[in-house]
Amino acid sequence: MWLAQAHVRLKPGINDPQGQVIKEALHSLGFADVAEVRVGKYMEIRIEGSGLREAEEQVEKMCRMLLANPVMENFEFQVSEI
Amino acid sequence: MWLAQAHVRLKPGINDPQGQVIKEALHSLGFADVAEVRVGKYMEIRIEGSGLREAEEQVEKMCRMLLANPVMENFEFQVSEI
Repeated sequence: MWLAQAHVRLKPGINDPQGQVIKEALHSLGFADVAEVRVGKYMEIRIEGSGLREAEEQVEKMCRMLLANPVMENFEFQVSEI
Repeated sequence: MWLAQAHVRLKPGINDPQGQVIKEALHSLGFADVAEVRVGKYMEIRIEGSGLREAEEQVEKMCRMLLANPVMENFEFQVSEI
């Protein structure tokens, strides 16, 4: 069994309204030093069978096909045996 | 300037309907080996001024007060200088 830990982030320069709202909420709670908040997705995917190389290739495809929007987002992931 | 990288995950045993939907979508795309998907949040918070210890204390408070739901979610974070 393999565990893929994938991060999907907005590309630099892409506006992040969710992060902006969180930043404003943090300011209103008194965290005045917060300069910027950017929000991404974190996914843990458990994959049965196959080898490390195959699992990595599958996760790469999953990210390209479904998990990330390649126009606006970057992704990166690590696969480890569990 | 400090960069906090925070992960917020559902606690083990808490049902993850979003992850379930993604798992089913991956199956329908042909990724039959996917056993489980769990979705979390990933946040990058840039913080001005203060020292490492103060930045870490602030992020801990932010997670407890706003970024994570302590009933259902765990959080962890790292703070590094940028």
